[in-house]
Amino acid sequence: MQFNVGISIKEDVFSAIFSPRSIAVIGASANGENIGANYFRALVRAGFTGKLYPVSQGGGHLLGYQVYRDLRALPEGPDYCIVAVPASSVPDVIDSCVERKVKVVQIYTAGFAEMGTDGAHLQSEVVRRAREGDVRIIGPNCMGICSPGARIPFGTMDKIAETGPVAFLSQSGGLTGDMILLGLERGIRFSKVVSFGNGCDLDIHQFLDFLSGDNETGIIGAYVEDVRDGRRLMQQLRALRGKKPVVLCKGGMTEPGTRATMSHTGSLTLSPQRWSGALAQAGAISVDSLEALADMVLIFQQLPYHFGRRVALVSGLSGGGGGIGVIASDTCSRAGLVVPQFSLETQDKLQRLLPQVGVIVQNPLDLGGKSSNAELLESCLHICAGEPQVDILMVDLHVGKLADVAGEQQVRNISLLLTKVAQSLSKPMIVVAKPGLAPHLCLEIQQYLAQNGLAVFPSIGQAARALALLNVWKELSLP
Amino acid sequence: MQFNVGISIKEDVFSAIFSPRSIAVIGASANGENIGANYFRALVRAGFTGKLYPVSQGGGHLLGYQVYRDLRALPEGPDYCIVAVPASSVPDVIDSCVERKVKVVQIYTAGFAEMGTDGAHLQSEVVRRAREGDVRIIGPNCMGICSPGARIPFGTMDKIAETGPVAFLSQSGGLTGDMILLGLERGIRFSKVVSFGNGCDLDIHQFLDFLSGDNETGIIGAYVEDVRDGRRLMQQLRALRGKKPVVLCKGGMTEPGTRATMSHTGSLTLSPQRWSGALAQAGAISVDSLEALADMVLIFQQLPYHFGRRVALVSGLSGGGGGIGVIASDTCSRAGLVVPQFSLETQDKLQRLLPQVGVIVQNPLDLGGKSSNAELLESCLHICAGEPQVDILMVDLHVGKLADVAGEQQVRNISLLLTKVAQSLSKPMIVVAKPGLAPHLCLEIQQYLAQNGLAVFPSIGQAARALALLNVWKELSLP
Repeated sequence: MQFNVGISIKEDVFSAIFSPRSIAVIGASANGENIGANYFRALVRAGFTGKLYPVSQGGGHLLGYQVYRDLRALPEGPDYCIVAVPASSVPDVIDSCVERKVKVVQIYTAGFAEMGTDGAHLQSEVVRRAREGDVRIIGPNCMGICSPGARIPFGTMDKIAETGPVAFLSQSGGLTGDMILLGLERGIRFSKVVSFGNGCDLDIHQFLDFLSGDNETGIIGAYVEDVRDGRRLMQQLRALRGKKPVVLCKGGMTEPGTRATMSHTGSLTLSPQRWSGALAQAGAISVDSLEALADMVLIFQQLPYHFGRRVALVSGLSGGGGGIGVIASDTCSRAGLVVPQFSLETQDKLQRLLPQVGVIVQNPLDLGGKSSNAELLESCLHICAGEPQVDILMVDLHVGKLADVAGEQQVRNISLLLTKVAQSLSKPMIVVAKPGLAPHLCLEIQQYLAQNGLAVFPSIGQAARALALLNVWKELSLP
Repeated sequence: MQFNVGISIKEDVFSAIFSPRSIAVIGASANGENIGANYFRALVRAGFTGKLYPVSQGGGHLLGYQVYRDLRALPEGPDYCIVAVPASSVPDVIDSCVERKVKVVQIYTAGFAEMGTDGAHLQSEVVRRAREGDVRIIGPNCMGICSPGARIPFGTMDKIAETGPVAFLSQSGGLTGDMILLGLERGIRFSKVVSFGNGCDLDIHQFLDFLSGDNETGIIGAYVEDVRDGRRLMQQLRALRGKKPVVLCKGGMTEPGTRATMSHTGSLTLSPQRWSGALAQAGAISVDSLEALADMVLIFQQLPYHFGRRVALVSGLSGGGGGIGVIASDTCSRAGLVVPQFSLETQDKLQRLLPQVGVIVQNPLDLGGKSSNAELLESCLHICAGEPQVDILMVDLHVGKLADVAGEQQVRNISLLLTKVAQSLSKPMIVVAKPGLAPHLCLEIQQYLAQNGLAVFPSIGQAARALALLNVWKELSLP
């Protein structure tokens, strides 16, 4: 079923997907209770920039829009169709799309190749009709796309991703939704997002080709369960090497995981050994979880081309940070980073600013709760950045604890200070923000710091892993 | 400086620490701005069950209490003293404690052995006077204790830990505060908590001996940087083997980490190799971070003596959970757990309840967003628990996503249902709760589920690691 291989994609296909002039939602009924209506509602709510047409046999009105009984009744042939009708009706819908010269159809409907022989048969029939009529397909069994620039939200989601340099491709709609939420939570901003499900026509290969030339995309993340053409993927990754970082999470790397992918997207998998080795050779990064993928695209987004393994650790903003500094040193060291000793000059400068007792003027630096003095904190961060043995600063900000000790306003003041310092600092800064019992404040701080260019992580372990992998990528990819 | 070794501890020492009849805070001045006053304020706020005396040279009143100018002026000799005066004054304070027959002195003050030769000298002098006068010391350079049963909060913290079976010992005051916050966040309940800093007199050995016989303590966690007597520690751990699980996080396991411990608590460390091997032999669990330690004491608290590696994974409560199920299978499998195939009988039972399309009736089970039907969810969980190949259920609850899709009330309804089901289920249940953009709701749900006996984790990775280590412990410790 490799219909896609070797078939060239017309240029206007991707603009029909990511910035369509018009979208029809087939299966968006006037009573507004079904999935199609939810898709339609999400597009209206997000303020989609083009024209919208609900289509459903029953007619009537939905959110003030006339519901057309058939695609053939529309005043124009839309660029893009979202299809949420029973599987058995999909072939007829494709015929109507061919008639109206629709460019791309996203099939939400499940019940195709992932459901066994009958479903696979139906899927082939759908692909055949679309191919003959020059209509491209995303899906079936998928949630479709998110294009923040065109105000197209993901599926029926209430919130829309922010616009930025990260593209995300996925065989799983659920994980795509999770990724968009992680993005809003952590400040990851997206150019294009695609959940392509069974990928019967357009799949990772076509989207990677497109994204490699897309000016809005600088970083690519992907969740895949199978790859139709492993050789082609590796060629594509090699072509991207050193240009746009690619971070891949592959599901089904263990026996139970593989079994699960069979039921999920009906695909057979590559062996883990072949996968990891090939990825490293091609200069791409392999991760084991969506959280790790989010960490990596975030660090590429926030610290583009800032490399170096030598970390200055700063703890104790909310009280004694000695123990945290010790664990952070161990964690960074285990991850493959370096926690160099400060030079005597740096130690001396810090010593002159800080009291003798309750602080530790080494790397890790323990401020012993002296961060309430903003000027002092600012000076210390500048001294750490001035240390020639250091490439990057990592600041432990326990939001919940600081809020407990010094109040919420003090947490906001310190965040403001950190963004100010980061702008004038000669080296990049990572912040580790932990929620404690103030998770809402932590979310606010995290989003604020991210908007102001800092890289924020929920734990020292995640920050250390991301920074280490960033440097691995550099060694794999850059001359 | 091994004063403690071989010196027996009188029985009443530990009741003077954890349930004193009276506490004096030396250095709690009437103006209320210094650390001693903050200690005093925290005790009053928490509702300490015994008598309280502020002591400071200036006299006056603090929160309506008379401030005594000297310990000698108190109407009684208190059981326990908290000392927050400059280091140079500490020897004199000890003399006054000897005079008033104080049983235990907690020295908050830093500037002792962790500060080099002069500090070490001063520390020796303090220990000598205390020893001669039969006064025991916690610290110096420490935050002291938390005894939830006696309403003694930790240091100056605003919140007090809940009462329960977990004891926590630590050389780091900062990490102890973090642990108590983690406990409040995740539902870990404490019997006794001690930050003993430099541990010049009472240290991990004395507290472990005491906790081994303490009826209120069932699980012991500890953060250590050095151990004065490695052989004795291993004897103590072997004595606890199979009785009370011990989870240890050791700081300074790498070169930069070791360097950091030198400045932090002035201690030299065991080699990592000796440490890990010895711990495993003694039946204790070694972890690398405070989060991992929290995961372990939580799983021992919530699932006492529930063992088994065979997990039923349930996802898709808030929509398509196929991809999450695949990653969860990989993650569990990598951690050393088993994700067995459901028997045909179990699959058949699930098939009869669930629609054909959009769900996956395998293990991992993808409910495809059908959880809005409470009765259906309940039945599915019972069917999974009924599968003979399964030891434990792991449910993926994406709080933020479910709130986005179905509203906050629906998240609360499902949580209520999960606690109800857990009570009637034949097998234990782990819930993975992710915050998304609803971190406050996630905290509420997490605490609610924990209070009702469920084990809640923030990620599948952490849950899988904890469950795997739980089984490792069983194999190491139980006959």
